[in-house]
Amino acid sequence: MKIAFLGAALFAALPALAQTNEAPVEDFKSSSLNQSGKQYPMVNSERRVRARVVAPGAQSVALEFLGGSRYPLTKGDDGAWVGVTRPQDEGFHYYQLIIDGAGVPDPGTTYYYGGSRWGSGLEVPAQDQDFYTLKNVPHGQLAQTYYYSKSANANLHFFVYTPPDYEKNPSKRYPVLYLQHGGGEDETGWGAQGHAGLIMDNLIAEGKASPFIIVMASSYVPGANTGRGAARGAGGTNAAAGGRGGGGFDFSAFEKVLTQDLIPFVDANYRTLADQPHRAMAGLSMGGMQTHNITLAHLDMFSHIGLFSGGSVGTNEVTDVNAFNQKVKVLFVGYGSREIEPGAVRGGGRGGVGGDPRANTEALKAAGVNAHFYVSPQTAHEWLTWRRCLHEFAPLLFKD
Amino acid sequence: MKIAFLGAALFAALPALAQTNEAPVEDFKSSSLNQSGKQYPMVNSERRVRARVVAPGAQSVALEFLGGSRYPLTKGDDGAWVGVTRPQDEGFHYYQLIIDGAGVPDPGTTYYYGGSRWGSGLEVPAQDQDFYTLKNVPHGQLAQTYYYSKSANANLHFFVYTPPDYEKNPSKRYPVLYLQHGGGEDETGWGAQGHAGLIMDNLIAEGKASPFIIVMASSYVPGANTGRGAARGAGGTNAAAGGRGGGGFDFSAFEKVLTQDLIPFVDANYRTLADQPHRAMAGLSMGGMQTHNITLAHLDMFSHIGLFSGGSVGTNEVTDVNAFNQKVKVLFVGYGSREIEPGAVRGGGRGGVGGDPRANTEALKAAGVNAHFYVSPQTAHEWLTWRRCLHEFAPLLFKD
Repeated sequence: MKIAFLGAALFAALPALAQTNEAPVEDFKSSSLNQSGKQYPMVNSERRVRARVVAPGAQSVALEFLGGSRYPLTKGDDGAWVGVTRPQDEGFHYYQLIIDGAGVPDPGTTYYYGGSRWGSGLEVPAQDQDFYTLKNVPHGQLAQTYYYSKSANANLHFFVYTPPDYEKNPSKRYPVLYLQHGGGEDETGWGAQGHAGLIMDNLIAEGKASPFIIVMASSYVPGANTGRGAARGAGGTNAAAGGRGGGGFDFSAFEKVLTQDLIPFVDANYRTLADQPHRAMAGLSMGGMQTHNITLAHLDMFSHIGLFSGGSVGTNEVTDVNAFNQKVKVLFVGYGSREIEPGAVRGGGRGGVGGDPRANTEALKAAGVNAHFYVSPQTAHEWLTWRRCLHEFAPLLFKD
Repeated sequence: MKIAFLGAALFAALPALAQTNEAPVEDFKSSSLNQSGKQYPMVNSERRVRARVVAPGAQSVALEFLGGSRYPLTKGDDGAWVGVTRPQDEGFHYYQLIIDGAGVPDPGTTYYYGGSRWGSGLEVPAQDQDFYTLKNVPHGQLAQTYYYSKSANANLHFFVYTPPDYEKNPSKRYPVLYLQHGGGEDETGWGAQGHAGLIMDNLIAEGKASPFIIVMASSYVPGANTGRGAARGAGGTNAAAGGRGGGGFDFSAFEKVLTQDLIPFVDANYRTLADQPHRAMAGLSMGGMQTHNITLAHLDMFSHIGLFSGGSVGTNEVTDVNAFNQKVKVLFVGYGSREIEPGAVRGGGRGGVGGDPRANTEALKAAGVNAHFYVSPQTAHEWLTWRRCLHEFAPLLFKD
């Protein structure tokens, strides 16, 4: 019995091991995020990744996905270490190499901010990647600038996407979406790994979304207390840290910067429609939680709300549907399918933020709220989910 | 005699070794280019760099400056490798770590494109760094966008700096400077390691420069033949390579893209003064050579010329001073002091491009050309030279 039981346990474990050791299909292509002229990492049609790094003197080399699996590489006669992973989800993945215990970026890739570090990114081509593909259509601008925040007493940095016709229509004014990154990410995320600009360029070219401005700022403002040790000032210097919170998040420092400094600066320096009906906020993961808290506390400022893998609005939070509908024109809640499977860990912790997001959203919809629940197929808590969320959310905005 | 001779040789070699081994002054501060929360690399008042990386299983770790010295690190009991370099020039330095033979970015820094790779950067504070320091002054925007280039048959990417008052004056039109990176660099260089935006913001705030637009594009266009193997398309993908030239540079593919596609696109999509008197071009190193060749071949398009560590204009190239002065309002030639010391290797190869740059420029000045020769104190072929060149060049522009 014991032997049979052990045999069953081994048999159950076999498929996962076999999948790693099985010879991959040899149709690997360089990841689209590689540096110019760099062949590795590569991805094949099974969505498996082959990494390679020259490290002739190393004792051990591995590829480690952020918050995920680690795959050992093996050394060849040429001093190069090579390995192939199991199939990965379509879309963007953060990772690093571990060379003799040192966690370092892969010298083959370009670099992205996530997991509170600048590190390697790779892209598994998605079947629906057309919606964020660079095309010969009119393009908006992704601009960065600095402004002085009085409440933070610091020069802060943000990105702003202006739509393709912004420069050509010097008298036209536009609505604004404030779009937030997730925990351990920053203001670069939506423009780089999120492809926010290309998503909007393509939607606008197809006539599926009205042109609007997108503002992307870091929520790690000086004094922020958002569950990690350090807050950042501008220009690459470290600002005074807020310290780790005793439990849960406190977004009040960012709320102050956003509502008292950033929004007034944007309205004074860009051709915005500077009123509540033309102002939206959305965010992913921690950015969704911030969007939830800040929009509901400032319904005089925001009319469109997007929560991407970052909780939902509970029925208990909408005590007067008519009053809510006077203010909120769109409530969008999106998740990756793997986040809402039974027993899955969602953004914001096991069980998600504020109860079951689908049930919450469907209940609000049934009560008469213009609420939308979206599920990204075959993705988890990752950027392909959020690219798709933006692609679904943007066409709903500023319809009046 | 033999022993005495050996002793003399050892003695002669001692100062260099002693400088490395001598205990550094313990006033190290984190480099301003470090990632948020990362302590290393650090720089002290002697301009020496202390690097540190945790690599418990490594056999050897070194710090290697791009095109320069390699410094071994030594392992401590805590598994971290630490080392201190000799004094470095003030300003920006590209480097990487070598861990058991693998050249990788330092996980402590942010990343910059140079030497045909994305790699680590560190900053040795300069005595005159005030001119590129982030201050509470009105800031311009650094925007990136795509456009379709017909001659390259590709969607290409560029950056554009618009001055602080650009958004506030929707009817005002501005002159344009086309500003080029060096060999192995790309369109990100001037905005990131060059601090072009901050330099202009500060000059404009002090009333020392007129506001103008700066366009920064990669000269590695598809089909380019500029002495390195690969040309780049947009969006991180590799375009068809032009191949290495047989000898010297051929800038004709970039010249075509610039004059036939990029300039018309910029003039159609930004509020430019779209004529020769309001168009300048400058570049560093290879970008200076491109500026030299392209402006002299298109004096109908450019009126202000800046060559930063990238050659000069010979008297034999200005056969008719009056005709030249009708077209060229400013000719600026700048170098780092270490580049023009006797026997120094200048950008463009030993001896520089087109003869002695100071003699050439002084001769043109004596002949009546509005020519300026600038020397950056105590710097070589590096970004502090080029930051200073831009800072000197910009106030000379568009004075009419």
